[in-house]
Amino acid sequence: MKYFERLTTERVFRDPIHNYVHVEDALILDLINTKEMQRLRRIKQLGTSSFTFHGAEHSRFGHSLGVYEITRRICQYFKRHYSLADDPVNGWDVEEKLIAQCAALLHDIGHGPYSHTFEGIFNTDHEEITVQIITSKETEVNQVLRKVSPEFPEQVASVIQKTYPNPQVVQLISSQIDADRMDYLLRDAYYTGTEYGTFDLTRILRVIRPHKEGIVFQMNGMHAVEDYIVSRYQMYMQIYFHPVSRGMEVILDRLLKRATEVYHDAPSYFEQNSILLIPFLKGNFTLEDYLKLDDGVLLTSFILWSEHSDPILSDLAKRFLNRKPLKSISFDDQAKHMLPLLTDLIETVGFDTKYYTAISSSFDLPYDFYAPAENRHRTQIELYQMDGSLIELSKASYLVNAITGKITGDKRLFFPKEMLASHQSDTYTLFEEEIKRFNRHIKNGTLIEE
Amino acid sequence: MKYFERLTTERVFRDPIHNYVHVEDALILDLINTKEMQRLRRIKQLGTSSFTFHGAEHSRFGHSLGVYEITRRICQYFKRHYSLADDPVNGWDVEEKLIAQCAALLHDIGHGPYSHTFEGIFNTDHEEITVQIITSKETEVNQVLRKVSPEFPEQVASVIQKTYPNPQVVQLISSQIDADRMDYLLRDAYYTGTEYGTFDLTRILRVIRPHKEGIVFQMNGMHAVEDYIVSRYQMYMQIYFHPVSRGMEVILDRLLKRATEVYHDAPSYFEQNSILLIPFLKGNFTLEDYLKLDDGVLLTSFILWSEHSDPILSDLAKRFLNRKPLKSISFDDQAKHMLPLLTDLIETVGFDTKYYTAISSSFDLPYDFYAPAENRHRTQIELYQMDGSLIELSKASYLVNAITGKITGDKRLFFPKEMLASHQSDTYTLFEEEIKRFNRHIKNGTLIEE
Amino acid sequence: MKYFERLTTERVFRDPIHNYVHVEDALILDLINTKEMQRLRRIKQLGTSSFTFHGAEHSRFGHSLGVYEITRRICQYFKRHYSLADDPVNGWDVEEKLIAQCAALLHDIGHGPYSHTFEGIFNTDHEEITVQIITSKETEVNQVLRKVSPEFPEQVASVIQKTYPNPQVVQLISSQIDADRMDYLLRDAYYTGTEYGTFDLTRILRVIRPHKEGIVFQMNGMHAVEDYIVSRYQMYMQIYFHPVSRGMEVILDRLLKRATEVYHDAPSYFEQNSILLIPFLKGNFTLEDYLKLDDGVLLTSFILWSEHSDPILSDLAKRFLNRKPLKSISFDDQAKHMLPLLTDLIETVGFDTKYYTAISSSFDLPYDFYAPAENRHRTQIELYQMDGSLIELSKASYLVNAITGKITGDKRLFFPKEMLASHQSDTYTLFEEEIKRFNRHIKNGTLIEE
Amino acid sequence: MKYFERLTTERVFRDPIHNYVHVEDALILDLINTKEMQRLRRIKQLGTSSFTFHGAEHSRFGHSLGVYEITRRICQYFKRHYSLADDPVNGWDVEEKLIAQCAALLHDIGHGPYSHTFEGIFNTDHEEITVQIITSKETEVNQVLRKVSPEFPEQVASVIQKTYPNPQVVQLISSQIDADRMDYLLRDAYYTGTEYGTFDLTRILRVIRPHKEGIVFQMNGMHAVEDYIVSRYQMYMQIYFHPVSRGMEVILDRLLKRATEVYHDAPSYFEQNSILLIPFLKGNFTLEDYLKLDDGVLLTSFILWSEHSDPILSDLAKRFLNRKPLKSISFDDQAKHMLPLLTDLIETVGFDTKYYTAISSSFDLPYDFYAPAENRHRTQIELYQMDGSLIELSKASYLVNAITGKITGDKRLFFPKEMLASHQSDTYTLFEEEIKRFNRHIKNGTLIEE
Repeated sequence: MKYFERLTTERVFRDPIHNYVHVEDALILDLINTKEMQRLRRIKQLGTSSFTFHGAEHSRFGHSLGVYEITRRICQYFKRHYSLADDPVNGWDVEEKLIAQCAALLHDIGHGPYSHTFEGIFNTDHEEITVQIITSKETEVNQVLRKVSPEFPEQVASVIQKTYPNPQVVQLISSQIDADRMDYLLRDAYYTGTEYGTFDLTRILRVIRPHKEGIVFQMNGMHAVEDYIVSRYQMYMQIYFHPVSRGMEVILDRLLKRATEVYHDAPSYFEQNSILLIPFLKGNFTLEDYLKLDDGVLLTSFILWSEHSDPILSDLAKRFLNRKPLKSISFDDQAKHMLPLLTDLIETVGFDTKYYTAISSSFDLPYDFYAPAENRHRTQIELYQMDGSLIELSKASYLVNAITGKITGDKRLFFPKEMLASHQSDTYTLFEEEIKRFNRHIKNGTLIEE
Repeated sequence: MKYFERLTTERVFRDPIHNYVHVEDALILDLINTKEMQRLRRIKQLGTSSFTFHGAEHSRFGHSLGVYEITRRICQYFKRHYSLADDPVNGWDVEEKLIAQCAALLHDIGHGPYSHTFEGIFNTDHEEITVQIITSKETEVNQVLRKVSPEFPEQVASVIQKTYPNPQVVQLISSQIDADRMDYLLRDAYYTGTEYGTFDLTRILRVIRPHKEGIVFQMNGMHAVEDYIVSRYQMYMQIYFHPVSRGMEVILDRLLKRATEVYHDAPSYFEQNSILLIPFLKGNFTLEDYLKLDDGVLLTSFILWSEHSDPILSDLAKRFLNRKPLKSISFDDQAKHMLPLLTDLIETVGFDTKYYTAISSSFDLPYDFYAPAENRHRTQIELYQMDGSLIELSKASYLVNAITGKITGDKRLFFPKEMLASHQSDTYTLFEEEIKRFNRHIKNGTLIEE
Repeated sequence: MKYFERLTTERVFRDPIHNYVHVEDALILDLINTKEMQRLRRIKQLGTSSFTFHGAEHSRFGHSLGVYEITRRICQYFKRHYSLADDPVNGWDVEEKLIAQCAALLHDIGHGPYSHTFEGIFNTDHEEITVQIITSKETEVNQVLRKVSPEFPEQVASVIQKTYPNPQVVQLISSQIDADRMDYLLRDAYYTGTEYGTFDLTRILRVIRPHKEGIVFQMNGMHAVEDYIVSRYQMYMQIYFHPVSRGMEVILDRLLKRATEVYHDAPSYFEQNSILLIPFLKGNFTLEDYLKLDDGVLLTSFILWSEHSDPILSDLAKRFLNRKPLKSISFDDQAKHMLPLLTDLIETVGFDTKYYTAISSSFDLPYDFYAPAENRHRTQIELYQMDGSLIELSKASYLVNAITGKITGDKRLFFPKEMLASHQSDTYTLFEEEIKRFNRHIKNGTLIEE
Repeated sequence: MKYFERLTTERVFRDPIHNYVHVEDALILDLINTKEMQRLRRIKQLGTSSFTFHGAEHSRFGHSLGVYEITRRICQYFKRHYSLADDPVNGWDVEEKLIAQCAALLHDIGHGPYSHTFEGIFNTDHEEITVQIITSKETEVNQVLRKVSPEFPEQVASVIQKTYPNPQVVQLISSQIDADRMDYLLRDAYYTGTEYGTFDLTRILRVIRPHKEGIVFQMNGMHAVEDYIVSRYQMYMQIYFHPVSRGMEVILDRLLKRATEVYHDAPSYFEQNSILLIPFLKGNFTLEDYLKLDDGVLLTSFILWSEHSDPILSDLAKRFLNRKPLKSISFDDQAKHMLPLLTDLIETVGFDTKYYTAISSSFDLPYDFYAPAENRHRTQIELYQMDGSLIELSKASYLVNAITGKITGDKRLFFPKEMLASHQSDTYTLFEEEIKRFNRHIKNGTLIEE
C-alpha cells in the first residue's frame, strides 16, 4: 500500500524555526501538495499584527508545517523511548504516528482571511470548516486521506474535535502545551523579532512522555515547562493583545459590517467588484465559496471599495489599507460609567460612533489563554515524578500558579486618533473644547475622572 | 520648520534584522505613513521564492525600513567620525543625511507585484515608476517631500537615478556594497532560514568611510567585505537562482502572457473579473492604475481565472496557485543543439510548448550580480589603506577575484513534471516511449546525448 | 589633560554578548591594561558551575568588560536624552560618565579564585579587597586612577561601596537591575548554552531613565523588566543553584579546610609545594599575596596534594580535579529530624562525615537574589509613568510580585555517591544493609520517612 | 557485556554549539569520567588567542565532547540511511560506531598546555602522547577501553594514526572536512563572538555519505561544503593567524626557552618553585609527568618567575601574565634583506633580540590548512553525483579552487612595542634617532625601504 510506504528519499523543507521540516511519508507530501493546504500560503498567521510588527507577515502554511514537524519529532522520540511494547500501561502506540501527523498538519486548514473578525461578521467557524475540509469528499485533502482507509478522514477529524479515543494523540495536537502552541510561540517570536516567545523546545522535547491519561512532562523538566508558560504569557501581553493591532482589527470589523449593510441596500456594485465575497455578504455560502477566500481577495475588495460612494465604507477601507488604526485607552470597572460621556464627545466631533468607536477586551481575541474560570475542562499540565506519580504544574511552580489565577482582561475604548490633542489638526479646531475635554479624561493611557 | 525638526520622542519599529528601526525625523515618519509606502506591505520581497523557501513571505515594506535604518546608522557614524569639518577633502557633509535617508526609504517604492515577470509582460519599469512616485504631484510621497522644499523631490529622485552630484550619497544607496544589498542579504537569509547570507554588518559599519570619490572601506575590514561578497554569491547561487522558484516564475510568465491573449480575444470577461488589471492587459495605464496593484490583486484574478473556459489559462492559474512548478535540467552550449529534439517530445506528449516550456538563464532574474563584461561602469569596491591610498578589492582579495570573473549563467530548460519518468502516472502511458526517450537525455540533472 | 582626552581612534574588543566593547577614553584602556585587571582572565566567572555546564569556562575579565560596556551605553543614552541641561530635576549629569565607567569596569576586581568557598575558609572578602585595590597606592589600578585627581580613586571606591552621593551612579552599578546583573545573566546564559537568561537588553536600554532618586524604567518597558526578573529567577533555579555544582563546591570547601588542618600539623610540605597559599593557610596575608592567587594556583596545589600522604587531603583533591561531586537530596523542615540518622549511616559505611557530608541551602551561594525578609534596604525597581509619577514594579506586575515573596531555600544534604544503591560497587558490599536503609529514605530526590 | 549495553537512561551534556551532547553508551560515559579526559578542562582550546578574543577561554574538554557528538550524529544517520545491509559496496558498517565515537572523543587527549609552543621547546608531541594515553596500561582511559577487548585500545589508536583499515572511520575523524574541524570552527566562532566560522552543519550532516573509499558528500550539498571551506579560510585569516595572538605566542616561546637556560645554570630554584616542570626543563619526562601539566601549572610558575632575579626571565613572565604582546609588521621576500638592519636597531635600543624579536610565518601555527604543495597525501573532498560517480570538490567549485592553490604565508617580524613611535615614552628618548629610523621602515603595517 502506497500510503504506508515511506518515501524512498526523505524530503525536507527549509524552515527558519525548526531548521528542516522532514517528510518521510508519501501521504504527508501529498497532503502538503493539495490545493487546500497551498491556500494557507495566502492567509497570514497573525492577521492585523503585522501592522504593528512589520516583520510578522508569515502565513498559516509555515505554521502548519511546523506543528507537523514538532509532532513528528515527538512521535519519533516516543517510539524510541516509550513504545507500548516497553510500557504496556503508559506507552505510546507507534501505529498512531500517521494519524497524529495528519491531524497536526491539517489542524488549521479551515482558517480563512482574518478569521477572528471575519467569523464574527459572517458567521463562519474555522474549526467546523476544518472538519468539513477533511471529511467532505469534494476536497483534495479528503481524497488523499481516503487512500489510507475510508474511515481515516473521520478519524483525523475526530482528533481535532478531541473525540478520538486515544488521549495521547488528542493532547499532542490540542492541550495547554501542544505542538500547535509550541510552534506558534516560537514562530511568532521569530517573525516579530521579539525574544519573549522563545523557550527551550529541545529540552521540552526531551522531557515529554506519554501516559495512559495523555501527555505528561518529567519533573526534571519543570523549569522548561514553566519557561514556556511565561513565554506564552509574555507573547499574549506584548504581541497578541497589542493595542495597535486591535485598533486595526476594530477597523476591519466595522468595514466588513458596513459592507454588509451597503450590500443589502445596493447589491449590484458588489456583483461587479467583489464577486468572491457575495456568498458571505448574502449569508449563504458553500465550502467551495469559502475555499476561494484569502487575504488578497479581501484586500482587493478593499482597494475597490476605497473609491465607493459610501463615505464610511470608503473611509474605513482606506484606513485599513493605509494603516490608520483607531487609538485606545484602557479602563477598569470603576471608570466604565464615563464611557457614554466620551462617546458623546466623539459623536459631537462628527464621528459615527457605530463605526468609529469600539469597546474591546483582550479576551475577544482569537487566542486562547489559560482562564480557569471559563474553561473548567481545560486539560491540566501534569508533571511525572521519579516514582511514577503525577503532580499538576501549578502545584509544583508558584510562578505558574501566579499567572494561572490572576489574568484579568485588558478592556479598552477605541476611538479615532483625531480625538487626541497631540494629533489635532486644523480640521477639528471647531471642536477644540470637546477635544480638550476628551483628553482631560486620559492619564497614563487610562480613563480617569476629569 | 517642521521638517527639519526632530521628533520629540524618537519612534521605533521592532525589526527582526536590525532589532529596532529608529525614526528621528518627522519627515521620515510621514513618508512611512503614506499610502504608497504602506502599499509595499502587500508586495512580497522575493516573489516566487516563497514557493521554495516557505519562510520567506516578507514584503518590500520591511526591506525598505531596513535600507533606511542601515543608511541612518552610516550617516550617524559618518557624522561622529568623518564630518566635513574634520576632513574637508574626504569628509561627509552632515546636511546630506535627510536626502540619503529619504532615498534609502523610497528606493523600491515603484515595485509592483512579481515585478520581474510583470514588467516583462506589461512593459512597466519599477525604477521609472519610483521616480514618478517621488516627483508626481499627485502622490502622498511627493506631498510630504515637497514640504522640505520644492526641489527636494527631484533631488531625492536624482539619488536613485545616480545623477545626484555627491557620489557618497549615491553610493550609499546604490553600489556593489550599499545599504540596499546589505539589508536584503541579511533579511532574505533570515526569512529563508539559511545562513549563507549572513555577514558581519556591525563590522562593515565600523570600517565604512566617506571619500571624495564615494564610499570606501578601511583595509582592516577587508575580510568582512570579502565575507559579504561571498555571502552574496552564495545567496544568488542557493536562493535567488533556485530552479524551483524559476519554475514557478516561468508559469507566471506564461499565465500573464496567455491572459493578455485571451483578453484581446474576449475582453468582457475581464471587465467583470479583473477590473484592476485591465489597464495593463490593454497596454495603457496611469500611475494611479499602477498604485492599485499588489500581490493580492493578481492572485485574486488567478483564483477567478482558474475557472475560465480557456483550458490553458485556467490550467496555468491553478498551477500557480497550487504550486505546481515546471521542472528543469541544466544544459551547456555543447548540449544546446538537442533542445529542439526535447521540445518536440514534449509537444508530442501533448503540451503546447509555447506555454509549457521555457529556456531560462539565471541572468534573466531581477537581481544584479557582478558581471564585469556587461557592466563596465559598475562602481568598484575600494579599500582605504593606513596611508590614505586606495586599493581595489579584487586586488587585495584573491577570493573576491576568483568570484569576480568567472560567473557563468546557469541555463536551464523548463518543462512539465509529467515528462519525468519518476512522476509518470496513468495519464501518459500512451506516450511511454517518448517519455523514456526524454529521460535518457537527463543525467545528474543535466542534458546529455542519448 | 591626557585622562580627559578621548582616544584618537576608538578601540574595540570583540565580545560575544555585546558584539563590540567600545573604549573611547585613554583612562579606560589604561585600566584594562593593568596587571590587576589582566589577572581576572585567570579567574573563572562561575567557579564550580563549569563542572555542570562545560561550556561556561569564561573568566571575570570578559564580564568586567561587559559591565563597563552596558554602563557606557547607558551613559551615552542618558547624555542624548536626559541630560541635566534638559531636565534639571531628574536629569543625568554628563560629568559622571567617567566615574560610572571606572566603577563598572572595576567592580569585581577584588575577586579571587572560587571566591565564595575561599572566603569562607580564609576570611577574605572580595568587596573589601576591591576597595583596597582601587585605593591602595601600590596597585597599577590606583596609579592610573590617580592621574585624574588625587581623590578619584576614593570616589570610584565609594560608588562600589554605595556611599557616593549621586544615587544614579550607584544604582547603575548596583541595584536590583544594574549593569552587573544584566551582563552576567546574558553572559552566563550564552556560555552555559541555556536560553533561560536571555531577556531584551536592547529594549531595557531604551526604557531606562535617570531620576532624582536613582534609576527608573518607563512604564511601557514594564514587560521587558518583568522578563528580566523572570530570567534572573530561572538562572538561579537552573544554573547557579544546580546541585552538581554545589556538590563540587562542598568538596572544595572540605578540601581547603583539611589543607589548613594539615598545614598546621606539618607546614614544611606546603612551603615546598604551595608557597603562594601559605599566607592564607597561616591566616596572615597582604594585598600583594592576594593578587598572586588565581584558579591555576589553587589547582596546581591540588595536583600536588593529590599525592599527599594524608588520605583525606589527597582523596578530596582527586575528587575535585577529576570531577567527582558529592550527591545530594533535598529536605524540608519536617524531614530535618532524620538527618542525624542518615549521617550515622554514612559514618558507619566508613566516611568521615566532617569531610564527606554537608548541609547546604541555596542561600549559601554567592549570588544575591531578591529576598525581602533579609534585605530590607534593597533598592526597589520603580516604573516611570507618563505623568511623571513612579510605581514600584511588583505593584504593576503580579508576575514579579509572585516571585518576590515566595522564594524558599532549597536545602540539601550532600553525601558520597557511594551511598546510592544505583552506584553501589563491590567495595561496599559489607554495608549492603546500611546502604539499603539509606536509600529507603529517598523518594523523588527528597528525604522521606522510611 | 556491560560495554555493549546502552545506558538505561541516555545522559546529556548541555552544549552551546550542539545544544545537547548525547551519551548512549556506558563506555563513553566512563571515558568522559576518566582523569585524563577531565584534565582537558584545564587546557584552553585556543592557547594565546584568548588574549586577542577575550571570549574564547573555552577548553579542549568541550571541543572533545563536540567532536564526539558530531561523530555520533553521523553514525546514527549512516545507520538509518546507508547501512552495509542496504548498500554492500559503499555502505556503513554499523559495528564501527563504538570505535569511531571513542576515537572522536579521545583524538585530542594528548594535548598539553599551549601545545604548539610547549612542544617546540620541550620536544613533546601531542599526537604521540594521545596514542600513549590510549594504549598505556597505566591510564584510566586504557582501563576503560580494555573492557571492550584487549585489542580495542590499539584499534582506537590506529584510527587516530590513520592506519585503521576502514577509511570511512579514519576520514570521519581526520580529513579535510571531519568531525574535528567541523566542531572547532563552529565552537571557536561562537566563543570568539565572530560569525566567520559559521556554516550550515545541519545541511552538511544531511549530505554526508559513506563510500567504499571513505567519506563523500552529495552533489546537492556542494554549496554547503563550499561555505564550510570559505568559513575555515576566514577563521584562519582572522582568528587563528591573528598577529596579537602570535605576538603573545612569541613571548611564551622565549620565556620557556629562557627558563630552560636559567634552569641549567641554577636548577635549585626550580626544585622549590616549579616542581612539576622539572622533568621537562631537564628533558626527561614520563607520561605520568606529562599528565600533571595544565595551563594553571605553567601560569603558576610564571607568577613565581616574575620575581626571579634573572631580568629577562622575570620580564618575559610579566609580559605574558599581563598581556604585553610583541608588535609586528608583515614583510615579503623582496623586503627580507632589511630584517638585519631592523634587528640591529632593536639591539641598539637595548633589547636582546634573541628574546625580544622573532620571525614568524602563519604556517608555523598548529593549524593545518589546505596546502597542496606540501601535503600531497591530503585526502581530497569528493562529491557524489546522482549517477554514483565522484567529482573532486575544487573541480566543481571555482570558489574552493581559488582558495586551494594560492594561500601564501603571512610572514611577520615581531619586536617590542617600545620600538613604535606611537608608543614611545620617556625611557627611550636616548634612542630617538634609532626609533625614528625603525618607523620609517613601516608603511600600512608592512616593511618597506626607507
